[in-house]
Amino acid sequence: MTLDAKVTAGLLVIGDEILSGRTKDKNIGTIADHLTSIGIALSEVRVVADVEEAIVEALNALRHRYTYVFTTGGIGPTHDDITADAVAKAFGVTIDVDPRAVAIMKPAYEKRGIELNAARLRMARIPAGADLVVNDVSVAPGFRIGNVIVMAGVPSIMESMLISATATLETGAKVLSASIVVAHAEGEIAELFAAHQAAWPQVAMGSYPAFKDGQYSTDLVLRATDAGALSSASHTLAEKLAASGFSFVKKI
Amino acid sequence: MTLDAKVTAGLLVIGDEILSGRTKDKNIGTIADHLTSIGIALSEVRVVADVEEAIVEALNALRHRYTYVFTTGGIGPTHDDITADAVAKAFGVTIDVDPRAVAIMKPAYEKRGIELNAARLRMARIPAGADLVVNDVSVAPGFRIGNVIVMAGVPSIMESMLISATATLETGAKVLSASIVVAHAEGEIAELFAAHQAAWPQVAMGSYPAFKDGQYSTDLVLRATDAGALSSASHTLAEKLAASGFSFVKKI
Repeated sequence: MTLDAKVTAGLLVIGDEILSGRTKDKNIGTIADHLTSIGIALSEVRVVADVEEAIVEALNALRHRYTYVFTTGGIGPTHDDITADAVAKAFGVTIDVDPRAVAIMKPAYEKRGIELNAARLRMARIPAGADLVVNDVSVAPGFRIGNVIVMAGVPSIMESMLISATATLETGAKVLSASIVVAHAEGEIAELFAAHQAAWPQVAMGSYPAFKDGQYSTDLVLRATDAGALSSASHTLAEKLAASGFSFVKKI
Repeated sequence: MTLDAKVTAGLLVIGDEILSGRTKDKNIGTIADHLTSIGIALSEVRVVADVEEAIVEALNALRHRYTYVFTTGGIGPTHDDITADAVAKAFGVTIDVDPRAVAIMKPAYEKRGIELNAARLRMARIPAGADLVVNDVSVAPGFRIGNVIVMAGVPSIMESMLISATATLETGAKVLSASIVVAHAEGEIAELFAAHQAAWPQVAMGSYPAFKDGQYSTDLVLRATDAGALSSASHTLAEKLAASGFSFVKKI
């Protein structure tokens, strides 16, 4: 089950290198943690190739469905970086070198002795109507158009842009979580746990098994926006488990 | 760009714990590597919550689009494991405890002193018409129905199922890759690299920047199914780069 969320998000990861296995994505986890921490429910992720039609189709599906859509990847200076153009196409707007982006990039590049050549000017191409999303790492900006926030794929640059963009976001009630780890396999506690979920519909409960050093354990995770409900649900669960003779690795 | 592929795949990752950030997915990278190695082009990934409608919708979108669809997660014994039922619903077939699954699980559980209780029998629920996908780690099977292969979310169990399922898959021409790393930022080599891509349409070329210890580098990755074309394209690229005065971290 999923908690009802006021503010939701989709994430679109763009890049052949993720699908081929060449690069192992780290951004999904980082963005998931960040959005959870500010009360935005990440509800769907898609990974697509560096192919215009694929990007446009996925972006249009996600942006009409969620409060926000974040994208990562494909905004560098090389020919395989086609995200900005695909986003412009999805929104039906023009795209050109943006004087605001050049104004940020030119002095920073001069200071570093980097030439603002034609390839690098590609990174200043911003769809009409977008706001810039600054980054402190490599200077070339991301952007926000409508409810879509377009970020780099390199994790350190993506993180800088994510922090920049956060100030402009509406956020919802933060989802709080509690965890009880029992020294038993999932199959032992499943019946008790299902009955507890049924009794607490406002708390989302999930179970995650582990097997280490010959010992089964199960992490029971409870999530809710209401701190009181979360506390009551997790304490009564711990009591029920103890009363049924289960032993704990971690008791709340 | 993406290479034309004869055999394609979609991947559906199912689980609230990935979207909340609680669990960092490792299966996407493992499956991407494996499929690339056997000549199947992973073309799209979606991550959805433990919500029946979301699973059914994503599965139906992917299974009509790609040769195969792999799913991970949601086939354990607890109430939040709803993948098998959602897959049955997507295919419009019934689902029940499958005697073939029980025949595998019962003796293995007896041997380990594990009770085959009602919760664990949930893991023997298999949609009508599916074949079992065995796993050597936890015994409870995954399954294949039509072009959809349903696997566990725990990485070690998923890997066992992926290997089991591989024998039943049609595979295509393996995508080979070559890599040249230059000691320059992407913006320096972008023009030359774009011209090279234009000259070799049968080879997909991508560029991946890094910045470490104050030094920029760029990994130029070439991919093709034709070994001769890949070799020619990468060697002529190295020659062009050398002729233009660029220096190398790794020359093919």
